[in-house]
Amino acid sequence: MNEITVDAVADPELRDPVFVEGLPGVGHVGKLAVEHLLEEFDSELVRRVYSEHLPPQVVLQDDGTTQLSCVEVHAVALDDRDLLVLTGDHQASEGPGHYRLAEAFLDIAEAFDVETVYALGGVPTGELMDEYAVLGATNDADFVSELSEVGVEFRDEDPAGGIVGTSGLLLGLGERRGLRAACLMGETSGYLVDPKSARAVLEVLEEMLGFEVDFESLEERAEEMEDVANKIQEMENQQSGMPSEEDLRYIG
Amino acid sequence: MNEITVDAVADPELRDPVFVEGLPGVGHVGKLAVEHLLEEFDSELVRRVYSEHLPPQVVLQDDGTTQLSCVEVHAVALDDRDLLVLTGDHQASEGPGHYRLAEAFLDIAEAFDVETVYALGGVPTGELMDEYAVLGATNDADFVSELSEVGVEFRDEDPAGGIVGTSGLLLGLGERRGLRAACLMGETSGYLVDPKSARAVLEVLEEMLGFEVDFESLEERAEEMEDVANKIQEMENQQSGMPSEEDLRYIG
Amino acid sequence: MNEITVDAVADPELRDPVFVEGLPGVGHVGKLAVEHLLEEFDSELVRRVYSEHLPPQVVLQDDGTTQLSCVEVHAVALDDRDLLVLTGDHQASEGPGHYRLAEAFLDIAEAFDVETVYALGGVPTGELMDEYAVLGATNDADFVSELSEVGVEFRDEDPAGGIVGTSGLLLGLGERRGLRAACLMGETSGYLVDPKSARAVLEVLEEMLGFEVDFESLEERAEEMEDVANKIQEMENQQSGMPSEEDLRYIG
Amino acid sequence: MNEITVDAVADPELRDPVFVEGLPGVGHVGKLAVEHLLEEFDSELVRRVYSEHLPPQVVLQDDGTTQLSCVEVHAVALDDRDLLVLTGDHQASEGPGHYRLAEAFLDIAEAFDVETVYALGGVPTGELMDEYAVLGATNDADFVSELSEVGVEFRDEDPAGGIVGTSGLLLGLGERRGLRAACLMGETSGYLVDPKSARAVLEVLEEMLGFEVDFESLEERAEEMEDVANKIQEMENQQSGMPSEEDLRYIG
Repeated sequence: MNEITVDAVADPELRDPVFVEGLPGVGHVGKLAVEHLLEEFDSELVRRVYSEHLPPQVVLQDDGTTQLSCVEVHAVALDDRDLLVLTGDHQASEGPGHYRLAEAFLDIAEAFDVETVYALGGVPTGELMDEYAVLGATNDADFVSELSEVGVEFRDEDPAGGIVGTSGLLLGLGERRGLRAACLMGETSGYLVDPKSARAVLEVLEEMLGFEVDFESLEERAEEMEDVANKIQEMENQQSGMPSEEDLRYIG
Repeated sequence: MNEITVDAVADPELRDPVFVEGLPGVGHVGKLAVEHLLEEFDSELVRRVYSEHLPPQVVLQDDGTTQLSCVEVHAVALDDRDLLVLTGDHQASEGPGHYRLAEAFLDIAEAFDVETVYALGGVPTGELMDEYAVLGATNDADFVSELSEVGVEFRDEDPAGGIVGTSGLLLGLGERRGLRAACLMGETSGYLVDPKSARAVLEVLEEMLGFEVDFESLEERAEEMEDVANKIQEMENQQSGMPSEEDLRYIG
Repeated sequence: MNEITVDAVADPELRDPVFVEGLPGVGHVGKLAVEHLLEEFDSELVRRVYSEHLPPQVVLQDDGTTQLSCVEVHAVALDDRDLLVLTGDHQASEGPGHYRLAEAFLDIAEAFDVETVYALGGVPTGELMDEYAVLGATNDADFVSELSEVGVEFRDEDPAGGIVGTSGLLLGLGERRGLRAACLMGETSGYLVDPKSARAVLEVLEEMLGFEVDFESLEERAEEMEDVANKIQEMENQQSGMPSEEDLRYIG
Repeated sequence: MNEITVDAVADPELRDPVFVEGLPGVGHVGKLAVEHLLEEFDSELVRRVYSEHLPPQVVLQDDGTTQLSCVEVHAVALDDRDLLVLTGDHQASEGPGHYRLAEAFLDIAEAFDVETVYALGGVPTGELMDEYAVLGATNDADFVSELSEVGVEFRDEDPAGGIVGTSGLLLGLGERRGLRAACLMGETSGYLVDPKSARAVLEVLEEMLGFEVDFESLEERAEEMEDVANKIQEMENQQSGMPSEEDLRYIG
């Protein structure tokens, strides 16, 4: 195997495809959002990306077989156009690996003549929330007003820490290729897996790309998480202060 | 020395060889199992693998001489067939090194026309145990029923964390070469070196490969470890709760 | 993108240019100093350096757009000569990356026929200070007396830990190219962003290079930091001992 | 600069040279020993080794100038033969760097037709000591008896952790080149810089190579350290238990 190996599983003709990335990160917002798209629409696996920059690991599947750590790209058929949806269980484990994998992902986008890339993720607020703003960032100044019109918020140099990992590099390295890219970041406590934040991000995507998706299954998952959150707040009232991040990690 | 150097110590003709890996890991189950095979059967060293991805270290031998960190492959003569048994004191120290060494190990397997690979290891249960199930995972769906017939348990997506390191990659990278591979994981507390778990794994291998091995020496080692475990449980009764993982690490 | 990519944004003719580096470090002294130069004088961006050895990250700008992690070199026009000023938000994340980026920076200096390099930084004293000595280090024995004449202090093997990172390598690798380089290190507590230390360093540079810069804006920032320092000393009097480095990190 | 750059500073004719390595390690035993040889005998710098696998750092010298992290090899003139003495302030910072630098050191040894390599170091005992045994390890079984005759102790698989870093690799990689090498490890508490242990190691070397060295300056340094050790034992008597490793690190 090479440093990065891309298996071309299928090469369908795509209609005006948009690239959507959702890898694990804060609140699993990006990954929840793209997994919901894969559940609700017809899709076809088109690429698998293997790399020594992903963990040396196989995951177990329902039937007892294993799958080597990889990142997958599916073609998702909306009514009027197609998406190329990238997801997986892992990001690269160190800096240069992040750069090299992000270039490989952009190569795939370009091979399908993608013109716009959306990187989906979460931005931590540090507190449990009722309303979920979606923050934006983009590598194309003209894109800001378009995104603002559908409710994406652009706040001064927020998040202050920038955008780290694959999402950040899709914007940064995409810009160097002349590929328009935006990051949509759903606000989330940062403590829990957050299906509500994922819904907020998908609602922006619906407006931008002109499609509709059923949120029932995501809503159910959100209610389960709400039960968890309520229990935490009870604990909080009984005890002193917020649960530690350590406690909450095991709940997510 | 290159990044990876394979010394071809011997090139015997092997009878329908099966590749068996047992490197250090949870409860040292895999390493104990393959070391027991090397003790009980005639064997011949056929390959030594050196690499800068192994620790920069020599180990001391009985006679005052040193040996550079390496992984060894021995040919083990059973009655009707041969095994290629891989073991050593170390796994790679980082991700890309794991991938590159696993490819080198698979190259050796293929050079000897191996058709099946067994990766032996342990799976931690977090508690001291009486009965030792052997969990399975494989890169070949058809292999599941064969393994189930001899008692290997396939549990839904268990272990949840997948299989990390050389064992995982032998399955994941083996699949890409069309090489059938299974991981046999003996349940073990995770606290102690566990010869009983190693025996449970070897008993599966006996059934699969049609050989018999004497377990006396492994049984003696198991009794020693049982004494240790009993002392721990006494301590446990006297004090509050389980010994910390920290305490137990020094006993293993 | 290659391991290191240098974008040649502009190639102006420069008058006897001197290279001045100020990347993040102790008390942000070097970065504050060069940012002050960029604010007070006309400047032109001449190079951007991107690299997989910088963090996999974009930063957000005022207008909602992002910029990929990079190091920038600006040409700064003093009255009689020009400076090449290198700054950025990050240093390399590991050793070999530091070496490779420092070589790239020196290549830029040499492409503009630079003869002298100044690396600006801070040296931690561990206590809040009133007077700010500037310590020196150089790769050219003849340069010591010149620097001493304008007040730079050379203390026996101080700092004992040497000079780590880009500043150190500009001296060390610069020497191998026959490029004269000095490190000017403003004393600073190490606890706070320190504009006063940055001023002390710039005053040395003024004398060495024959220019004058207005310090008003830096003075304002220094007063803000003094307020912070005073609050800390109040806390200190109320409580026991100095604030922990942990506490202070969040103030900087 | 390349990954590793070797500056050939001088190429003297050497009389039956023996290679002696002493880099920083447990109790600084190896480094103290070779530094003592460099102080007591005439020597000439013959090689400097620079590498991105050494820290990105310059050290400060008495005169205010800096020196890039490097490893140096000096030719040391004994009465009847010469030594090639390797020392420096650092070892490599990660595994592959250790391997690559060790190969570069062995290349230097071979370029001078060296037939024997001594790697000097310390082995931690965990307690302050009065008598200093010297443990041995070698890559050549025939060398064991020669070393035993001058008092080097070979203990069964001791140290159990093997020999890590440059010393270990000089034996391990040296063996692959057919180069005889031994590691001489002076017992030392592991808490303090230990000139007495360095003397014990040098006394073995005197016997093996037939030379005599004055130990006065090393003895003075040992007395200073003894004062430190006594103070620690006083503290120990006053307080409960041994000083923590943390405390002692700052004394070394």
